[in-house]
Amino acid sequence: MIKINKAACVGGGVIGGGWIARFLLAGIDVDVFDPHPEAGRIVGEVIANAERAYAMLTGAPLPPRGKLTFCKTLEEAVVDADWIQESVPERLDLKRNVLMEIDAACRPDALIGSSTSGLLPSDLQRDMQFPERLFVAHPYNPVYLLPLVEIVGGEKTSHATIKAAIEKLPPIGMKGVHITKEIEAFVGDRLLEALWREALWLIHDDICSVETLDDVIRYSFGLRWAQMGLFQTYRIAGGEAGMRHFLAQFGPCLAWPWTKLTDVVDLDDALVEKIGQQSDEQADGLSIRDLERIRDENLAGILQALKAGNGGQGWGAGELLKDFEHSLWAGAKQTAPADHAVPLKLVEARVSPAWVDYNGHMTEHRYLQVFGDTTDALLRLIGADLAYVEAGHSYYTVETHIRHLGEAKLGQAISSACQLLSVDDKRLHIFHTMSDAISGETLATAEQMLLHVDSKAGKSSPAAPDVLAKARAIIEAHASLPLPDGAGRHVGQKPRVETA
Amino acid sequence: MIKINKAACVGGGVIGGGWIARFLLAGIDVDVFDPHPEAGRIVGEVIANAERAYAMLTGAPLPPRGKLTFCKTLEEAVVDADWIQESVPERLDLKRNVLMEIDAACRPDALIGSSTSGLLPSDLQRDMQFPERLFVAHPYNPVYLLPLVEIVGGEKTSHATIKAAIEKLPPIGMKGVHITKEIEAFVGDRLLEALWREALWLIHDDICSVETLDDVIRYSFGLRWAQMGLFQTYRIAGGEAGMRHFLAQFGPCLAWPWTKLTDVVDLDDALVEKIGQQSDEQADGLSIRDLERIRDENLAGILQALKAGNGGQGWGAGELLKDFEHSLWAGAKQTAPADHAVPLKLVEARVSPAWVDYNGHMTEHRYLQVFGDTTDALLRLIGADLAYVEAGHSYYTVETHIRHLGEAKLGQAISSACQLLSVDDKRLHIFHTMSDAISGETLATAEQMLLHVDSKAGKSSPAAPDVLAKARAIIEAHASLPLPDGAGRHVGQKPRVETA
Repeated sequence: MIKINKAACVGGGVIGGGWIARFLLAGIDVDVFDPHPEAGRIVGEVIANAERAYAMLTGAPLPPRGKLTFCKTLEEAVVDADWIQESVPERLDLKRNVLMEIDAACRPDALIGSSTSGLLPSDLQRDMQFPERLFVAHPYNPVYLLPLVEIVGGEKTSHATIKAAIEKLPPIGMKGVHITKEIEAFVGDRLLEALWREALWLIHDDICSVETLDDVIRYSFGLRWAQMGLFQTYRIAGGEAGMRHFLAQFGPCLAWPWTKLTDVVDLDDALVEKIGQQSDEQADGLSIRDLERIRDENLAGILQALKAGNGGQGWGAGELLKDFEHSLWAGAKQTAPADHAVPLKLVEARVSPAWVDYNGHMTEHRYLQVFGDTTDALLRLIGADLAYVEAGHSYYTVETHIRHLGEAKLGQAISSACQLLSVDDKRLHIFHTMSDAISGETLATAEQMLLHVDSKAGKSSPAAPDVLAKARAIIEAHASLPLPDGAGRHVGQKPRVETA
Repeated sequence: MIKINKAACVGGGVIGGGWIARFLLAGIDVDVFDPHPEAGRIVGEVIANAERAYAMLTGAPLPPRGKLTFCKTLEEAVVDADWIQESVPERLDLKRNVLMEIDAACRPDALIGSSTSGLLPSDLQRDMQFPERLFVAHPYNPVYLLPLVEIVGGEKTSHATIKAAIEKLPPIGMKGVHITKEIEAFVGDRLLEALWREALWLIHDDICSVETLDDVIRYSFGLRWAQMGLFQTYRIAGGEAGMRHFLAQFGPCLAWPWTKLTDVVDLDDALVEKIGQQSDEQADGLSIRDLERIRDENLAGILQALKAGNGGQGWGAGELLKDFEHSLWAGAKQTAPADHAVPLKLVEARVSPAWVDYNGHMTEHRYLQVFGDTTDALLRLIGADLAYVEAGHSYYTVETHIRHLGEAKLGQAISSACQLLSVDDKRLHIFHTMSDAISGETLATAEQMLLHVDSKAGKSSPAAPDVLAKARAIIEAHASLPLPDGAGRHVGQKPRVETA
């Protein structure tokens, strides 16, 4: 994948902040220019939201976070960036001026994207000296979770620019969709406006409340559109005869449309107040922060669900997440803690909503999930990483013994550490301890035996010499540690202390 | 919850079939009338889809499936039903006739819902003798997974009818949303038409392809709408100032709308062919059946994700699923297999896409999930069910020993059986075996020790006498079984056969 080396963001509001978070969490340094006195606070809040969201979104190892620098001048921010994202307010004259300044200060090979949600790229690039590198890169809020970027070129934009822009988005978990012909509002906002106008009429005419309208969407076609969009959904509706049949059946309705075509609803004080009040009722005391938290949790869950879709191959935004995670795993270098004479702390996590039962307690099998992640981290540490697995070798778990000593609850910060008990050519005997990350209280332990296998031959085989060497180095460092309490014990065996 | 005792479906196409599946899987008997020669096949296919979807959707125990009867006459089908659903083709005269026939033949207290997607209930009920019981109950495809039912009354519909209709939907996993003022196409199809018309223009004008348009939806606002709909989403977009601020900021745009207002696109042969061809390309060889399978898998996953949302309380359609599952658990009576002298087969499952890794192998912690389900089923069997837990008592797992002896793969049918090893006032010692459901090959075993606790006091306590009595009866029946291979063993212990 072709990666962005350094990004610059001009404008750091909610959209600019979302871009900044995307870049930083993908390990890219970002220089920011925004003269707004509150820019630092706003960007900080978006990044905090994004970090919490990523913790729910993926268990893949994120690279070390990029470096964030607020610059005093626009020139300073853009001078050595290879992707510059403009997200200033939606006024053509302002955007043109900012883009001219960027144009004059940045590297000749830099890509310059504009976050505009409706202005034409041909208008934006009019006064630029090197207009061929300007394109619209229109994202959707929250930018750190929604993958879509509408990529639109103007008359003077080069093909090479469009191509490069689309190629550089997957490594930050995004998808560039090329809109081949420029029109105001592109595709997404056109569709949104059409539906939004009809929705305003339904509220204006008292057909339903905003809560009812939202329920109609989210209990029905919203669930369809999250995965297949409009045409693919209608293809299914057409049955075996497909799309042409669907059009023949439903086409004629358009000639006597139900929707209000020619009128534009007047957003007068009465309508604004009606919607405002119904929206307050719908929120039922939840603040915008609450709603953002809930939204991000839901989005992370939906994206994970789509990752598991299509027989585990991933579907739509979930397939993209899967590819993104694959690149994270491939790029991860598990670094060993400095002092090997203590158990290796390999996993830090927060108990996520999907992990708990009705009472907010972590479900039994999620303990094993965390221990499994610990084992995976250990394997990466000794070189049995993704490349090793793809080359046909792997460690399989053959036995696990779990003891529950405490209870992990929703939101609790937990960590998991590993002590190596023994290693031979084919076997790895390990012991994990899961603790509260703050108090250090032990919550559970897992003793595991892993067997090294040749996955093509389908049988056990000796591990590679360098993998064994790394495992043995840890065993040596761990030799002075006492055997963990609970190791080598069977289910129902009385605690050691009672037999002493 | 107020349940439907018996349902009748008049019309058994894709929509009628979806209703039939909803009723049957909720344990309700359904009488069907549909003179179409293929009705039996079509309904059978929808039910098969629904059963596969429910297996992915929920681990809660479904009641025994209702009885399906195809009737020779409409009268026979509706005569003793308390919910009658009409899903015949969308022609006013036809629907009126069918509704009059239903009206004449059914019980006086029956509810009569029409699946019409646009006709006015006042028009539908015009010729009925008891029009107060007729309402629109407009569902969305696939009816067995999408929960929404738009409930719309006509001039003569009684309040009691609307109230009863809405109350009877949650026990079949659906949500009735009351549209208070009747207009053609109600709310959902109005919104869909507005967006659909704009989409057709975008394709007509070559702004983008159907694939690009679908990508724009499913990588961005489709993900938002699956959980929050339109207004709640925009409330967040307005920031702390909320909805009124959002309207003030974006209201003026409507005065110079981007969308094509006054024109209706001409769906001529050229446009039909363009869309048909692009749709074929997008499907990339996937048949309608393939797409349905993928859609259902995704919908089940999205609904599960929303169930875990809002800090585990569930959100939107996920909260509804959670309530539905709760009612299933509460209603479940775990029935004991007839012969206790064999391990109790308590769980049958299929390895779902969400359970597997890149290579299609079941992830380690999913083995423990299946074993956890087995333990839950055992607990229900001995009376430690949901009511027992809600009354403040429960069994907690304190120790688990898992052995992996084979590999479960995507789609594989597996079963899990339990042998009781010992029981005392506070402890339950059990041993589960997971096998391939067809060959019987052992895939994994789990030995567990459970401790009975008083959850309010937060400490161990003796189980209730009737729970203990049921557990002891099983122990007695299991007394003649040999100790399972692997019981009482610790990690790394050599197999018994080698020491013999």
